[in-house]
Amino acid sequence: MIATTYSIGTLQYIPFFYVIWSDDLLSASEVSVIQKTITDDPSLDADEKTQLLGWLNRTNPPQDEEIKHWKQTISNSKIKLIESDTYPLTSFSQRLGNFHCGSCDFNDHLKHIEINLGIQPNHYNHLFDVEVIHEKTSNRYNANVLDSLLKGSNTNAVDEFRDFLDRPIFSWDIHRDKESFRAKVLEQVQVLGEKGYGAMGYEEAYGGTANMPAYAAIFEHLMFIDGSLAVKFGVQFGLFGGSIQKLGTQKHHNQYLGDAGKAKLLGCFAMTETGHGSNVRGIKTTATYDKDSDSLIIHTPGKNDNKEYIGNALHSTMASVFAQLIVDGKNEGVHAILVPLRDKNHNPLEGITIEDNGYKLGLNGVDNGKIWFNQVKVPRENLLNKYGEIRDDGTYFSSIKNPNKRFFTMLGTLVGGRICVAKGALAGAKMALTIAVKHALNRRQFNDSIKIQEDLIMDYPTHQLRLTPAVASAYVYHVTLEELMKRYSDDALGDKRKIETQVAGLKSVITWFANTTIQECREACGGKGYLTENRIADLKGDVDIFTTFEGDNNVLLQLAAKGILSDFKAEFNSAGFTSVLKLLRTQLTDRLSTINPIYSNKVDSEHLYNPKFHKHAFTYRTRRLTYTLAMRIRNYIKKGIPSYQAFLKVQTHLLALGKAYSVELAYDIFSEFCETVADEEYRALIQKLGTLYALHELRSDATWFLEQGYFAGVKSKAIRQRVERLSTELRPHIEVLVDGFGIPKHALTAPIAK
Amino acid sequence: MIATTYSIGTLQYIPFFYVIWSDDLLSASEVSVIQKTITDDPSLDADEKTQLLGWLNRTNPPQDEEIKHWKQTISNSKIKLIESDTYPLTSFSQRLGNFHCGSCDFNDHLKHIEINLGIQPNHYNHLFDVEVIHEKTSNRYNANVLDSLLKGSNTNAVDEFRDFLDRPIFSWDIHRDKESFRAKVLEQVQVLGEKGYGAMGYEEAYGGTANMPAYAAIFEHLMFIDGSLAVKFGVQFGLFGGSIQKLGTQKHHNQYLGDAGKAKLLGCFAMTETGHGSNVRGIKTTATYDKDSDSLIIHTPGKNDNKEYIGNALHSTMASVFAQLIVDGKNEGVHAILVPLRDKNHNPLEGITIEDNGYKLGLNGVDNGKIWFNQVKVPRENLLNKYGEIRDDGTYFSSIKNPNKRFFTMLGTLVGGRICVAKGALAGAKMALTIAVKHALNRRQFNDSIKIQEDLIMDYPTHQLRLTPAVASAYVYHVTLEELMKRYSDDALGDKRKIETQVAGLKSVITWFANTTIQECREACGGKGYLTENRIADLKGDVDIFTTFEGDNNVLLQLAAKGILSDFKAEFNSAGFTSVLKLLRTQLTDRLSTINPIYSNKVDSEHLYNPKFHKHAFTYRTRRLTYTLAMRIRNYIKKGIPSYQAFLKVQTHLLALGKAYSVELAYDIFSEFCETVADEEYRALIQKLGTLYALHELRSDATWFLEQGYFAGVKSKAIRQRVERLSTELRPHIEVLVDGFGIPKHALTAPIAK
Repeated sequence: MIATTYSIGTLQYIPFFYVIWSDDLLSASEVSVIQKTITDDPSLDADEKTQLLGWLNRTNPPQDEEIKHWKQTISNSKIKLIESDTYPLTSFSQRLGNFHCGSCDFNDHLKHIEINLGIQPNHYNHLFDVEVIHEKTSNRYNANVLDSLLKGSNTNAVDEFRDFLDRPIFSWDIHRDKESFRAKVLEQVQVLGEKGYGAMGYEEAYGGTANMPAYAAIFEHLMFIDGSLAVKFGVQFGLFGGSIQKLGTQKHHNQYLGDAGKAKLLGCFAMTETGHGSNVRGIKTTATYDKDSDSLIIHTPGKNDNKEYIGNALHSTMASVFAQLIVDGKNEGVHAILVPLRDKNHNPLEGITIEDNGYKLGLNGVDNGKIWFNQVKVPRENLLNKYGEIRDDGTYFSSIKNPNKRFFTMLGTLVGGRICVAKGALAGAKMALTIAVKHALNRRQFNDSIKIQEDLIMDYPTHQLRLTPAVASAYVYHVTLEELMKRYSDDALGDKRKIETQVAGLKSVITWFANTTIQECREACGGKGYLTENRIADLKGDVDIFTTFEGDNNVLLQLAAKGILSDFKAEFNSAGFTSVLKLLRTQLTDRLSTINPIYSNKVDSEHLYNPKFHKHAFTYRTRRLTYTLAMRIRNYIKKGIPSYQAFLKVQTHLLALGKAYSVELAYDIFSEFCETVADEEYRALIQKLGTLYALHELRSDATWFLEQGYFAGVKSKAIRQRVERLSTELRPHIEVLVDGFGIPKHALTAPIAK
Repeated sequence: MIATTYSIGTLQYIPFFYVIWSDDLLSASEVSVIQKTITDDPSLDADEKTQLLGWLNRTNPPQDEEIKHWKQTISNSKIKLIESDTYPLTSFSQRLGNFHCGSCDFNDHLKHIEINLGIQPNHYNHLFDVEVIHEKTSNRYNANVLDSLLKGSNTNAVDEFRDFLDRPIFSWDIHRDKESFRAKVLEQVQVLGEKGYGAMGYEEAYGGTANMPAYAAIFEHLMFIDGSLAVKFGVQFGLFGGSIQKLGTQKHHNQYLGDAGKAKLLGCFAMTETGHGSNVRGIKTTATYDKDSDSLIIHTPGKNDNKEYIGNALHSTMASVFAQLIVDGKNEGVHAILVPLRDKNHNPLEGITIEDNGYKLGLNGVDNGKIWFNQVKVPRENLLNKYGEIRDDGTYFSSIKNPNKRFFTMLGTLVGGRICVAKGALAGAKMALTIAVKHALNRRQFNDSIKIQEDLIMDYPTHQLRLTPAVASAYVYHVTLEELMKRYSDDALGDKRKIETQVAGLKSVITWFANTTIQECREACGGKGYLTENRIADLKGDVDIFTTFEGDNNVLLQLAAKGILSDFKAEFNSAGFTSVLKLLRTQLTDRLSTINPIYSNKVDSEHLYNPKFHKHAFTYRTRRLTYTLAMRIRNYIKKGIPSYQAFLKVQTHLLALGKAYSVELAYDIFSEFCETVADEEYRALIQKLGTLYALHELRSDATWFLEQGYFAGVKSKAIRQRVERLSTELRPHIEVLVDGFGIPKHALTAPIAK
């Protein structure tokens, strides 16, 4: 028999029974806890007790009709669940009692059930109308708008590509065996080649659109699919194809570039040797011109002189080989030569030995290998001869007379690759952040001991501090790399040396940022982050090597610093005494503003949030580091210390300058970008990200600013507090911000990100 | 025909020909370079040119007799190769000419060969007597002495165990497939169990020696073999066996402990749930006492309440299950119960579901799994009842009345496990450092453009700064953990709360240190570090999770900070007004010494190297952070903010205090250890490591010390310079220092570490 109305005593138990039976929660433990509560509850009379205890029989559960009636009793009341109540279910019961019977006390016995069973609102909130109090995410901003801002002029290419990637061949899976993994990645690269994505950066004649920024934008998206795919794609189209495009001439383009862009001709970029990685100029492979046969003889002289870590080595039929070009007994320096590696049956050609590099920390879908050349003969025209050629009379000719300059001009063509490496690493960081933030918006852990519902881990200040500044930095670096790619692709800009310096520094700073961020995300997701299915593990293994390849970060930062120094020296030397004086005056001004205690003690928010302050601090740092570096080197050289030794002595100073310069550059580019955002509300949000980036960076290097007297102690502390406060202020928008990265839903396969 | 004596012109070419033909170096490029040199060399007459060019014929090479004669000509001279010469081979030739013919000029044409072929001393130094100028490693210290200092009282156990590990079953290999990897690791664990290593920490009656320090020392060595082995070993003997030993009573010991220690009874430690990791108190699994059947009913109530990441889950036949114990309808809090999982055929018992957790970032040789219990009945005596029991009359009894205290007492038994986790992570760092340092002592890259030999990367200041402070820290942390393990194992020390605080902090600091160090080592080894064969890749993946398991670092640091705060509160409250005054006076003294500009500007090396300075700085930091933290919390509470909210607001402060406390503790323990080193020379070396550790730590937190006014800018800069200088000073001993870690040769399988 089913009751249709309930007494007040019974009524207050209805929500509990409804929760328990709806979720099949009634186990032995529940039964005994509830039995005891009912038995001990003095507000219940004997009939009520009998009725309630009768509903606890697991072998003879209440009928569906009964449960439906409970539900109606609850919905008719229109009472809402308030998750933030200390005892949400007990309070709910009390209000239900009030509604149906006019007056009902808060029942401590019900509270006893709630505590002992530890049932939390997230267990049952789907059963009731919920009064939303604490929002997970604010509706103020729309992720699509942010995404559009980031896509910028690449919107069409990116949108089309995101859709394209939503097909089974690009679906993510765990691959442990390198052979099958490589086979899959090869197939993916071939599909992309066929569809014209590989050639995107080439001229139209070779299947492309000559749109490097769009190429870089789609490249970034491959990281969301798989790191190995991104890298193999970059090797085939960016490095191998790119070397033909940038170092070769018309004849090479005509013969090879179309096929390379379609992945019909698979190739590799054979620069690094076992003995020489960072020091490319010291590579040992020789390409000796033999006049009699009008050919080049490619040779690996010693045991550590083989090519190594060459991506695509096992699938390629051709390689761009970097070697010391020897013509008529004279070493003309490093040049690239196209060398066929395999015959039609994919067997290595005579004189060529290729070995697998084996398993790696990550990127096991990329077939890295070692290559040896034993007196391998190729025709003279295989020399990629844009910057240096062997003429018909057998003599060497280059329009760039200075071998040093020639070398750096050739290597300068790699700059585009470095931008892509930074973009790839950044994409890894975006993906990890998206996963970690979404997890933190679902995961609850710990609570106030008097409250039933546990807290979202995204609501912990430490968690906000771990993730939010990184989200802000990802925005800043995205915009920075987009701008650098534009500048790099702009042929109107003649001298590319400046951009080389910029890219060298930013590649280092951004790949390190990406690795640190991915690690933080792994830890922020706890044990879940360690499971391969949740993707962060692979991102960590894959992105790790980005700090090393296409230029080791420590080496690149020194390169950047030397570039800055050359500019500085030019400034110092060009206009003679006047300019030196002017320079010193600038230094002096910096110094003055430093020791001005009003400035270094200024802690009001208006000042700390003012872009002028950030800009001044960054500029001051770069200039001061440059100046003191130049002075230190000059003093060493004055004492007769050779410049090589002098540079060794200031190595850590060089690294500091390289980083400072890169951060200043990123902030400047981002600030300019902010001005272009038309919508005021979105501009404010974007600017807040820039502010958080700036303050977080200043905070990270506060030791230096304090040492210089640029910050007083109070200011440094105030900046730390502002970083924490901004992280908390951005809390309601954190989900929108990561959604703004635009990672396609089909690529967000991590179960914890759903 | 073979010449027996050579003219001076020919003679000077002999070393070059000897090098070239000895190594079969004569490729097309060499031939053309040398031909050109000979042809152009005006110091040669026509006959000499003919003779030399005749030796360049690759199809008709010089006879062995001829080459042997070259060799004699060289050795008879007793001239040594000086690698540090700018042109070592040309200089060698000149000295050879001087010896045989009295006078010989430095021949720029020979220099031409040396430059163009780029042959370096490390290519040919095995062919000559070498004058050692630049030592790779000083002979001043002996690694065995350092190793003995670190082994301390565990010397016998460790030496015996290192030998034991030198057998095929423990040889390292690449494992990609988890099934075969797990099978191998299981076999290894079983061998270790059979031989009595697993039981080492148990009483003699159960196959052990009751020697926890020795157990921890051998545990560390398993990391050198493989991370999965170490973890599975820890799960079986430390966690599963340990829970029986520490939470069970005599009956459990007699029935299970012997078999657990021999790995005959495989078990797991089922604490963590999908929904509850860090918040153990919130776990949902229930163990309800059913009086009628006198049994406990183990049940997984909701969908996220299953056990997860349980190591050994797939191989176990039993689990120590942590669950909410419900007796007579009352929740008595978390208790551990032994629950059989599988029958004799290894099939799960009724009501038990076990799933594989799948692939992870590392530790894929450990079978982590998820476990669900559906109303699983076990006898009452399976409750591990040392701290809480169900009596024959069906009532619950515990000698610890306060449930809070009871919970922490039970969890306190995990402290030994946390020490082992820290030791394991540290062992990973030691291994990575050993590999990276040995690589840096072989790898050459870049040089002065006027010198032929490239520089060892270990000689770069940045490289020294990357690796040397980490080596010093590894020494400090090793000694610290040894001491903590001794204190933990010392039953004479009654109250273990203090050591819990200490271990919570140090586990966090050391596992983070290990991860950062391993990452630095990966990057320091460049592409070589990325190859799985070189071991750093696995170390990185394996050690990563050490920051999360056995207590998430961020949570543990807060626990440590709360422990410190309790001590402080005790100090504050116990003796009333007098003690408060005393405390404030201490604060005042700290403050006085801070603002004393003589102190904060003191930069002489005597002061900076003085342990009293380090000690004072560390103590000052801990006390000040404690004091300000207590004041902040007090002020919040005064304003009516609930203490839970107040603690949230000071979360980052808690973390800072936890770290500061741990570093101070490590330094104190290490300083005391230094005093025990009898040999003066070794004591000096060990002390220098302590100094580097202290200054490096102070440097890392210089922002804070500058903010407090404890450092003036000049002092902070001076500390940075001292860190760099000490790193360089330790350069000659760096190899001995890493050898002192005592990693057995058979475990150093990384090709780059040979």
